[in-house]
Amino acid sequence: MRKESRLIRLIWRIVVVVALFFLGFIIGWFAKPTHPNTANIVSSKYLREFLDEMQPDQIREHLRKFTRLPHLAGTEQNLKYAEQIMKEWQEFGLDSVEMVPYDVLLSYPNKSQPNYIAIVDQLGDEVFNTSLAEPVPEGYEDISNIVPPYSAFSAQGQPEGDLVYVNYGRTEDFFQLEREMGINVTGKIVIVRYGRIFRGNKVKNAILAGAKGIIMFSDPADYWAAGVQPYPDGWNLPGGGAQRGNVLNLNGAGDPLTPGYPAKEYSYRFSLEDGVGLPKIPVHPIGFHDAVHLLKNMGGQIPPNNWKGGLNISYRIGPGFTDDFKSQKVRMNIHTNNQVTRIYNVIGRIRGALEPDRYVILGGHRDAWVFGGIDPMSGAAVVHETVRSAGRLLSKGWRPRRTIIFASWDAEEFGLLGSTEWAEDNAKLLQERAVAYINADSAIEGMYTLRVDCTPSLHTLVYDLTKQVTSPEEGEEGVSLYESWHKRDNWTNDRDAPRISKLGSGSDFEAYFIRLGIAAGRARYTKNKKTERYSSYPVYHSVYETFEIVEKFYDPTFRRLQAVAQVRGGLIFLLADSQLLPLDANQYADSLRKYAQSIMQLAQRHPEEMETYEVSFDSLFSAVENFTVAARDFHVRLQTLNRVRVMNDQLMYLERAFIDPLGLPGRPFYRHVIFAPSSHNKYAGESFPGIYDALFDIENSADPEKAWEEVKRQISIAAFTIHAAAMTLIPPA
Amino acid sequence: MRKESRLIRLIWRIVVVVALFFLGFIIGWFAKPTHPNTANIVSSKYLREFLDEMQPDQIREHLRKFTRLPHLAGTEQNLKYAEQIMKEWQEFGLDSVEMVPYDVLLSYPNKSQPNYIAIVDQLGDEVFNTSLAEPVPEGYEDISNIVPPYSAFSAQGQPEGDLVYVNYGRTEDFFQLEREMGINVTGKIVIVRYGRIFRGNKVKNAILAGAKGIIMFSDPADYWAAGVQPYPDGWNLPGGGAQRGNVLNLNGAGDPLTPGYPAKEYSYRFSLEDGVGLPKIPVHPIGFHDAVHLLKNMGGQIPPNNWKGGLNISYRIGPGFTDDFKSQKVRMNIHTNNQVTRIYNVIGRIRGALEPDRYVILGGHRDAWVFGGIDPMSGAAVVHETVRSAGRLLSKGWRPRRTIIFASWDAEEFGLLGSTEWAEDNAKLLQERAVAYINADSAIEGMYTLRVDCTPSLHTLVYDLTKQVTSPEEGEEGVSLYESWHKRDNWTNDRDAPRISKLGSGSDFEAYFIRLGIAAGRARYTKNKKTERYSSYPVYHSVYETFEIVEKFYDPTFRRLQAVAQVRGGLIFLLADSQLLPLDANQYADSLRKYAQSIMQLAQRHPEEMETYEVSFDSLFSAVENFTVAARDFHVRLQTLNRVRVMNDQLMYLERAFIDPLGLPGRPFYRHVIFAPSSHNKYAGESFPGIYDALFDIENSADPEKAWEEVKRQISIAAFTIHAAAMTLIPPA
Repeated sequence: MRKESRLIRLIWRIVVVVALFFLGFIIGWFAKPTHPNTANIVSSKYLREFLDEMQPDQIREHLRKFTRLPHLAGTEQNLKYAEQIMKEWQEFGLDSVEMVPYDVLLSYPNKSQPNYIAIVDQLGDEVFNTSLAEPVPEGYEDISNIVPPYSAFSAQGQPEGDLVYVNYGRTEDFFQLEREMGINVTGKIVIVRYGRIFRGNKVKNAILAGAKGIIMFSDPADYWAAGVQPYPDGWNLPGGGAQRGNVLNLNGAGDPLTPGYPAKEYSYRFSLEDGVGLPKIPVHPIGFHDAVHLLKNMGGQIPPNNWKGGLNISYRIGPGFTDDFKSQKVRMNIHTNNQVTRIYNVIGRIRGALEPDRYVILGGHRDAWVFGGIDPMSGAAVVHETVRSAGRLLSKGWRPRRTIIFASWDAEEFGLLGSTEWAEDNAKLLQERAVAYINADSAIEGMYTLRVDCTPSLHTLVYDLTKQVTSPEEGEEGVSLYESWHKRDNWTNDRDAPRISKLGSGSDFEAYFIRLGIAAGRARYTKNKKTERYSSYPVYHSVYETFEIVEKFYDPTFRRLQAVAQVRGGLIFLLADSQLLPLDANQYADSLRKYAQSIMQLAQRHPEEMETYEVSFDSLFSAVENFTVAARDFHVRLQTLNRVRVMNDQLMYLERAFIDPLGLPGRPFYRHVIFAPSSHNKYAGESFPGIYDALFDIENSADPEKAWEEVKRQISIAAFTIHAAAMTLIPPA
Repeated sequence: MRKESRLIRLIWRIVVVVALFFLGFIIGWFAKPTHPNTANIVSSKYLREFLDEMQPDQIREHLRKFTRLPHLAGTEQNLKYAEQIMKEWQEFGLDSVEMVPYDVLLSYPNKSQPNYIAIVDQLGDEVFNTSLAEPVPEGYEDISNIVPPYSAFSAQGQPEGDLVYVNYGRTEDFFQLEREMGINVTGKIVIVRYGRIFRGNKVKNAILAGAKGIIMFSDPADYWAAGVQPYPDGWNLPGGGAQRGNVLNLNGAGDPLTPGYPAKEYSYRFSLEDGVGLPKIPVHPIGFHDAVHLLKNMGGQIPPNNWKGGLNISYRIGPGFTDDFKSQKVRMNIHTNNQVTRIYNVIGRIRGALEPDRYVILGGHRDAWVFGGIDPMSGAAVVHETVRSAGRLLSKGWRPRRTIIFASWDAEEFGLLGSTEWAEDNAKLLQERAVAYINADSAIEGMYTLRVDCTPSLHTLVYDLTKQVTSPEEGEEGVSLYESWHKRDNWTNDRDAPRISKLGSGSDFEAYFIRLGIAAGRARYTKNKKTERYSSYPVYHSVYETFEIVEKFYDPTFRRLQAVAQVRGGLIFLLADSQLLPLDANQYADSLRKYAQSIMQLAQRHPEEMETYEVSFDSLFSAVENFTVAARDFHVRLQTLNRVRVMNDQLMYLERAFIDPLGLPGRPFYRHVIFAPSSHNKYAGESFPGIYDALFDIENSADPEKAWEEVKRQISIAAFTIHAAAMTLIPPA
């Protein structure tokens, strides 16, 4: 009995033990989360550390270090800087850093035959020559390898003829010249002032108009801020300074000889004649001291006031000089050479902990026309600091959910070549895996406030992040960057929020956004657009872009660059480390509606033709409505999500859905149906570019019916694309 | 003491209990697998059930049901069948079934003005007319709406002139005619025999050669099997039978009026003049009874023996008739109309349990020229049985890991229109989500063995699966389909395994494989290629494709169709339900090497030019080597995988990596760099089509240097694409 009782107790105990074990087991089993939910809390602690780690003094050091010597793409010095960046990124703690070379077409002045422009008399003697170089700023007198101002990829030649002044050389300027002033520039040399549009567009317009050469000058009206001294006493462009720059019309092709494919050693190269976007006429840039000599004796009509710049001359149109100088002609002497040259991107990576096959990219160029004090090293210094800060976090045990890729691009100044070749090389990977691309060109172009251009799905993230960054402005201690920005640049016509603009082109995000359809954005510090009317910043692409111009004028405390670093870095951090991708489809819907309204209003300037040719925007608005509903429902479902990866993929691929593999008419590498660089100015972003260009052609087409047919076709493509994008947001099955 | 002791014991017990609980908890926590590993065992049990559920009698019923009435695309009856299929798929238990309409360009004979060909005398009187219809088979005498034989999309017109006989109308036939026989067909009507190549290619060649009309006839040499009676006593083509078919050259564009975009109500449509691939001359098909009358009195040269068919005539080339009939001409009377017509796809879905955003597609067409006994309903019956079987499994609790999509396409016969429009409509979803596409056109074209065409990455899966299917042949009880197939059609020149061929075109997989780069394959029962030399199967596209021809001759037990159902269905099952995608990158590597060797050998026929123009295939072989290593390493890593989704995505996107958004030269919708339909015969698959076409042009180019440059460019594109594909297989970060 006693024994039995013990046995029963033993059995009982065993039962209890086993039961408890199973209870524990079962609770353990179900307690284990399928997805870790603590991730976001930890991530936000690390975000604060990541932002706080970025320091003004460090950025100053980086900028100082990488602006001592000229480092034009394809030169020894630019390779040295690449090697140094690679080494330092490794030291900062990235998982891998590699150097990725391509062999692309670059263009340099001929060292033994300088480029210049001359006035020649009737004997053919040169009675005036433009300067061969800019006066070198103090402290840099002993530096060699400063490339003189030139237009990269200019055709060679020595055309001689009469000048015609064409204002900014915009499409509308040439129309006005030809249609209102009745001047034909065939066989003439045109002289245009820099500004307003990308220089390559000026060159293209001049070629289309029949010019045999084009001279571009920096007019004080466009490169001189009121009340500011020329460098080194202030930040204005001296009269001897001139703007370098490429004059290609690549439309996103990258290396002109290998369009669509990376310029590897084995790659097939087109001949120069078949290369993409190379101008067929000589092109040359000059400063305003030289320009005065060419312009002052010009004859012909007096132009309208908005064609007059800031020089003390009458800005006559020509052709040619006044009667007193009738026998004088202008001769361009251009000997610039194109040559296939090796360039180097530096690519660094932090491997994602949970989603290594999702990429967030921060890329900016390294090559500079001369020192690159602003363009691009103010941006490269910011990237460098971001890498350093990320490295510190890694050493503390942090690792982002997704893979982060840092890129130091080469040869941006020669047509976005380094970034485009890498995009071509990695297109298949990027298409499937890239979440977002943040661009890092010049971080500062003014002293006023933040400037952001990005895809609509990033708007919300930009606003959220800038509320967590401090304003760098004096007297705004404790004020957020968002508030400071909001106060200075409100989006008044739409709503009460800081202004964010569309992406155009002119920097390395182009292939990622416009060709591949990867959500993209850029941020920098800028001027007051309402009061400061000069183009870009005055010393843009001149020898006067030094470290000192930043240190003395643009950002003496380096806190503006710090703020830009925190914005660029913060975007990358949140895109890489948020469990749920911080992309907002509702914002895209809002933007699509605005763009649709705006393009319809453009068409409605022709109400009769719209009726005659039965042009309707109904399908477009119906598609936008469909998209809006899909986006709203998507974000509602996101509240109760249980399939993080599936829904994140839907968000990631949303931007991709706007890509049409057939490309825009005549521009096979611009494939984004919603956004493209304007056909009239690469720098400007155009929404519904297909419809816009078709509408533009209406006024210039000999066959209006055909032109309106193209408008209808483009509306149909846009409507289809938006419907297709909406489909990507509905539940996948 | 006693109290304390109790307390201690109590505490001790609590400790034990808690400890046990935690032990259980911890073991429970770690015992829970992150990925369920039992999935594959359960899945394989269901596979057996799925295959066994498909029954010959059911397939017979389905076939009987859907072949009672003619159901040409765009007709009432084809919509009725669509509705019936939709209803039955719903009853079978699919999660959703929808009808998806498009408005595409179709082509029908004019009911009040029949098409025919006449011989006219010198007065213009018609002394002989071809028949207006085929003799209707017994049992179908009361059926209306049998469309007479015609060439869909023929131009309208009544051209009159002399005949020229051009054999099969292949590129090489026209070369021989022009270069060796010295005959120019400009302004002539050409007569060609059907067979060897797609009829649209014959028409294109005739147009390029300058013909003003083209007549196509079925010669007994090509549509008559030895020792077989004509239908209904056997399965040969009666002399009054003729082959319908479209004569487009779409190159993958889908609806001719909406290339690149789905033909929705709001879609922009090109005018007929701007439509893709529409022939500019009249085209008409005839049977051999009629052909004899046109051919027997022809004059001109006696052709080489391989130009002679099976009729008891001399097959003279012409032009025109012998002296005795010199005054007679041939007149075509063609009044066929193009018209935009609504078509209907039926799309059914089974939602994936774990990866709803991964799609496996089984699609085949429903529209038929007349009854569609073989083409396509033998295939549609098989799909129907697959859906029924999948429904049964669902009712037993099964649900596939991934989403399965079943499609009943419309208007395949008019240029793969239904499937291509749906691919265009869903391109963005398919690009990101589609795992594989299995095609289901005619399931039987012979009585000998299995025929499989598929992408190399599916080879291994096809072999594995066919080992689990039983041979349908009498006397092969207990023999696997694999063994039976292996015995009958060994891949002797390569290795000891059943032959699998490249995909060409001519059926609905085209847009999925060649345009979008989705792994694809097809399987059917076929004839003995070595002994049976006729083209396709004799009654192809005639009124004699009835239910009875299958029941009496091709598959009386319906066990061959059952085997095909098990292969097509089994592929879908394994692609949708295997935890790890059953795609094999190593097989792709092997195939790439073979294709590279073969294309190089083609170039090496010109050793001198290769030296002169510095043509090297090194970069291609180096890329293949790189791919081979990446594939091998990938499959080694797969053994120890811990990231199923990441590696499955790599497998899924492998085929996509071969897509070049720029398309093949002149064929923007053929974008697969490794595979495309031959430019000379749409039915045939060409590997490295870009290089192949460039090599072909060499012999016909006025500028050999330029032609060889194109060869070099295409080698470079192929090498780059293979490198890029290799990159998709390496670890993502």
